[in-house]
Amino acid sequence: MEAVTSPQPTPHVPIGRIPVLQLSPVVEGGRWPAKAAVGEVVPVEATVFREGHDAVGATAVLLAPDGTVHSAAPMTDVAPGLDRFRGFLQPDAPSDGAADWSFRVEAWSDPYGTWSHDAVIKFDAGQDVDLVLAEGRLLFERIVAPALQATRPAADAAALEAAARELADATRPPEARLAMAMTAAVKDALRRNPLRDLVTASAAYPLRVSRPLALAAAWYELFPRSEGATRGRGKAGKVGTGRSEGSWRSGTFATAAKRLPAIAEMGFDVVYLTPVHPIGTTFRKGRNNTLDPQPGDPGSPYAIGSPDGGHDAIHPDLGTEQDFRDFVAAARAEGLEVALDLALQCSPDHPWVTEHPEWFSVRADGTIAYAENPPKKYQDIYPLNFDRDPEGLSAEILRIVELWIDRGVTAFRVDNPHTKPLDFWEWLLSEVHAAHPEVIFLSEAFTRPAMMQTLARIGFHQSYTYFTWRNTKEEVEEYLQEVSGPQGSVLRPSFWPTTHDILPPYLQHGGVAGFAVRAVLAALGSPTWGIYSGYELVENVPRPGVEEQIDNEKYEFKPRDWSQADVIGVSTLLRRLNEIRRAHPALQQLRDLTVHPTTNDQVVAFSRRVRAEHLPAAGRPGATQDDVVLVVLNLDPWGTQESTVLLDLEALGLTRPDGVEDQAFFVAHDELSGATYPWGAHPYVRLDPREQVAHVLTIGLA
Amino acid sequence: MEAVTSPQPTPHVPIGRIPVLQLSPVVEGGRWPAKAAVGEVVPVEATVFREGHDAVGATAVLLAPDGTVHSAAPMTDVAPGLDRFRGFLQPDAPSDGAADWSFRVEAWSDPYGTWSHDAVIKFDAGQDVDLVLAEGRLLFERIVAPALQATRPAADAAALEAAARELADATRPPEARLAMAMTAAVKDALRRNPLRDLVTASAAYPLRVSRPLALAAAWYELFPRSEGATRGRGKAGKVGTGRSEGSWRSGTFATAAKRLPAIAEMGFDVVYLTPVHPIGTTFRKGRNNTLDPQPGDPGSPYAIGSPDGGHDAIHPDLGTEQDFRDFVAAARAEGLEVALDLALQCSPDHPWVTEHPEWFSVRADGTIAYAENPPKKYQDIYPLNFDRDPEGLSAEILRIVELWIDRGVTAFRVDNPHTKPLDFWEWLLSEVHAAHPEVIFLSEAFTRPAMMQTLARIGFHQSYTYFTWRNTKEEVEEYLQEVSGPQGSVLRPSFWPTTHDILPPYLQHGGVAGFAVRAVLAALGSPTWGIYSGYELVENVPRPGVEEQIDNEKYEFKPRDWSQADVIGVSTLLRRLNEIRRAHPALQQLRDLTVHPTTNDQVVAFSRRVRAEHLPAAGRPGATQDDVVLVVLNLDPWGTQESTVLLDLEALGLTRPDGVEDQAFFVAHDELSGATYPWGAHPYVRLDPREQVAHVLTIGLA
Repeated sequence: MEAVTSPQPTPHVPIGRIPVLQLSPVVEGGRWPAKAAVGEVVPVEATVFREGHDAVGATAVLLAPDGTVHSAAPMTDVAPGLDRFRGFLQPDAPSDGAADWSFRVEAWSDPYGTWSHDAVIKFDAGQDVDLVLAEGRLLFERIVAPALQATRPAADAAALEAAARELADATRPPEARLAMAMTAAVKDALRRNPLRDLVTASAAYPLRVSRPLALAAAWYELFPRSEGATRGRGKAGKVGTGRSEGSWRSGTFATAAKRLPAIAEMGFDVVYLTPVHPIGTTFRKGRNNTLDPQPGDPGSPYAIGSPDGGHDAIHPDLGTEQDFRDFVAAARAEGLEVALDLALQCSPDHPWVTEHPEWFSVRADGTIAYAENPPKKYQDIYPLNFDRDPEGLSAEILRIVELWIDRGVTAFRVDNPHTKPLDFWEWLLSEVHAAHPEVIFLSEAFTRPAMMQTLARIGFHQSYTYFTWRNTKEEVEEYLQEVSGPQGSVLRPSFWPTTHDILPPYLQHGGVAGFAVRAVLAALGSPTWGIYSGYELVENVPRPGVEEQIDNEKYEFKPRDWSQADVIGVSTLLRRLNEIRRAHPALQQLRDLTVHPTTNDQVVAFSRRVRAEHLPAAGRPGATQDDVVLVVLNLDPWGTQESTVLLDLEALGLTRPDGVEDQAFFVAHDELSGATYPWGAHPYVRLDPREQVAHVLTIGLA
Repeated sequence: MEAVTSPQPTPHVPIGRIPVLQLSPVVEGGRWPAKAAVGEVVPVEATVFREGHDAVGATAVLLAPDGTVHSAAPMTDVAPGLDRFRGFLQPDAPSDGAADWSFRVEAWSDPYGTWSHDAVIKFDAGQDVDLVLAEGRLLFERIVAPALQATRPAADAAALEAAARELADATRPPEARLAMAMTAAVKDALRRNPLRDLVTASAAYPLRVSRPLALAAAWYELFPRSEGATRGRGKAGKVGTGRSEGSWRSGTFATAAKRLPAIAEMGFDVVYLTPVHPIGTTFRKGRNNTLDPQPGDPGSPYAIGSPDGGHDAIHPDLGTEQDFRDFVAAARAEGLEVALDLALQCSPDHPWVTEHPEWFSVRADGTIAYAENPPKKYQDIYPLNFDRDPEGLSAEILRIVELWIDRGVTAFRVDNPHTKPLDFWEWLLSEVHAAHPEVIFLSEAFTRPAMMQTLARIGFHQSYTYFTWRNTKEEVEEYLQEVSGPQGSVLRPSFWPTTHDILPPYLQHGGVAGFAVRAVLAALGSPTWGIYSGYELVENVPRPGVEEQIDNEKYEFKPRDWSQADVIGVSTLLRRLNEIRRAHPALQQLRDLTVHPTTNDQVVAFSRRVRAEHLPAAGRPGATQDDVVLVVLNLDPWGTQESTVLLDLEALGLTRPDGVEDQAFFVAHDELSGATYPWGAHPYVRLDPREQVAHVLTIGLA
């Protein structure tokens, strides 16, 4: 690991002829790259202004990892009094392990904008008409200079040539000459390829462009030992309380693989396995987190390590290394990637405890320190101490991660990263990125914002979030806007309605409809979401006094009767949500979300939009229409709610026809129900949670 | 001038063992120094946190320009959930022209904090008592190590030695041993000189420390030609409309100097002169900005340049260079500094027009471009064009500035800096700073925030602000908080109730009380404020249709009958306000302002406070009490207003005694009226604007 150093302040450099300040997305001055993904529409902003009254313009420029210009986009002043310009860039390949993409902003004096602004006012005042035309003629001579014309589409070049000609034609009336210099064709051509004076470029700031799955993915979590676990003398087990006599036989990679086709069929992208390593027996926890395990209790897979091995080993009950590789192959055959839990802690039986006591803390009495949060004690867990032999321990963890990558793992769900030093994570993720830029790390840190944000800054690709506890309309609206705003260039949210550790009160009480509401919000509110297996069965009984499930799978085998899933109906919903996600690029984007006001405090409406120019050309040949999805959701799992939705038409790419007040002028197609509604700007909705908790709407012209 | 370059992003550096992020005050990553002044209490903030549950601490460190540690201050967590730490640094000498001060933040693991937190919980639970004491003993062995003890005051060292001894004394009861390690004396000693593990330092970020006058100053503006101007054949003029027949004789530096004792006696620090250069005659403006000047109309001093010379010359009517130097000497004798207007524009008669036509814009018809804001034309003014010969023009302006510095000018009020390129200003101010770090530049840019902020970023010491147009309670409260918040490290506000260009509606209608209200707000709301001469006489008649005075002094001589000033009473108020400002360090600080709620929407209350440890030791030997000033102001110039003030006692350094509800427990002394009030947390006030518009209160114990 590198020795600790610290960033130096930006050295002084002059302000530049046209100021370009406060660029976004920039993470701590560029110390870390901002996040982007292949195909992501990245909003770039800067504060651009100049002295005096002349017009300014700005261009966002995307640079490929080799430093060459990939593309440029015009920026527009989105907050005129604040001189804030915004444009959109869209990288089309990932950063490799060696170099990142980058972007810069170019600010410039806009002689056409200055001249045309003044010309209109002076013509209106009958002032300096000849002088204005003479200056226009000189201006257009520069605009149609060969070097600049060569950069333009032929139609644009022709339009500007014509304007220059007419402007110079003294035989025509002055008003006609001016009008030719002001046509929409001229303005569009100059918006695309402007004449730019005093061009001042910002520095290029880094963008870490990841593969699409880093931004948009549907995860499915399972405990492999549960899938195909059976009880007693070879007799197939059934779902039960687990309290009956008889010993269990663990599920294996082979039996778990039988579940893969169903997971793929529901449209998930990633299957995430809780730890698969040997489990300790010293201070092993029994069912429901008890301290007196019964014979046959399998222990928590998070109590890692036994005489059978540590983090590099596989629990003998699950199978061999080859069995694991076969599982990965089976997943790939179904179009699924495999993610593994990376839980950096040890049971007292972990081989490291004897081989590397220097990787643990030692107390004043000479014993190795177990985990504590006084007065609570976790004697089954030894935390690692990264300060006694940082190089040795870090190298060993990198070896383990590389080992699992070699075995086919392409993503890691990292357990409690916030209890390990950040400099360790930064180093580890950087090493893995250099060799395996495709590998994705998901941070499971439910803690304070500074830590969560910083884990994301230093390299985690995705992050669990507070989504699980955002339930009311106000909370949901605010949170959707927070995660999809500027924060989206730092932290990619992963929305999970439940995890094996968390069963929130809303889902304890909301029944099937509650599970449907949270699935819709998670799947459509964030491009990355995840489901913990059993969600399909509405497993909603908590262990009394805690926000987690009773008979928690962490401490016992939990095979499930999947035939019930389709009866309950949630798996059908999950499948449909993933289908809609895949069909709509708008749902694979994080940024540019709009919340639409409603008149009912149980009804939330939000939309996402990708403009036609940013849609994948291959999938939508000749696409000229934006991709827009509007979600209207009833948060109340118990009762029918009615509401008027006050649509932000501009955000939907719609314009209200002239003269139309509140009449229907577009068609909303419900992708969940198949229904079609003629809607205006203020549609009325009625959602009965026993039938349908949400409308998921695409938009067509009436 | 330097070629335009652009800042590079902060190179990647590892996060460090204990993260230190988002330092403040840092301007664009440190590209420009943050502002501070000698004696200013500078709040330093950083986000500091660590992995796991152990305690962290942070230290703010001030570095002198030679890079040596000047002082260090403990930081406290001011927003615990957000891990935001704050401490205060106080530089005691200005940056010289070559090097700036700087600061860094050190984050560290706090072994005492961790141990003491866990120890209390474990003792309460009767858990691991012997182990806790054994660990405490080892900890205190480190705490009292000789190297660390040597840094401590003797009393602190002794307290820690005693604690270490008692903790190790196995003959005493465990509770007693623990208690000795937890005394206030031990905690205070460790707050001052903690035991720090895993210390991680941020980079050092620059602070441009200016002399005190850059932060706190009272300015007084005058047109020198008006002071002592007389009309007709040697007969002394009197204040009149100026419409009568008879020619004027201009005031001179010699006659204007006679006003200096009165300005000094009112407590001002700086006398600011509008331009003193020769004035053009081509397109000269007449009285009240008319286009048909009458013989004898003196013209606007902002139409600079005539055959008598340009920006380096002195108007012959005002006197000679020696007369100017004598004026400066007379001002200094009164304790006043002289500021000059720097208005970079030319009349058509300026020598540059013929000598340096390349410093102006040329239009398509070959003429030099006059100033325009279409359809308005300003034919008496030629703007400079900085793009045709930037090096030549910049060098000439630097020469002129140096010339006036040589003549004794120590501050420049820069007219409309936002109409000249920012890279020019940055270069000019940097050159002047290098040679004359004591010289202060005040930016007169009434324009959009990005421009105003950036002029301040790149080197202007003080800035005119929107204060003039902030009138209602909500506006005033918000604005006071805005300028005294984080923005205060970038832009030092100068509050002016009026200028020669601005007579806001509130003052057109508010009478004498209105002038008093705005004077109190300006003088006590900002450490730098300014008055345009004539304010004492409540000159409040506007030219119809514009927000400026009728018979504007820009276009005519305006001698005043100062004997009326004391009759009206405003000059007495100005004098008293400046006296109070000088007596109270709290009023010479910008940061740390608190707005106190009131129950009347015409009554504003705010306070400033400097803690005893930051007071100048010389002026207040053995000071143990904070300096606090509380202002309660009636914004209504026409009517008596009553209100309850809901005091933020903590901000005033007060603690409500136990058992006291709303009874009086401290004494508020009114520095304006001399009255004394016994007050509690929710005092009642009644302000009749005909008698007194405000209470300006200092606080004593009852």
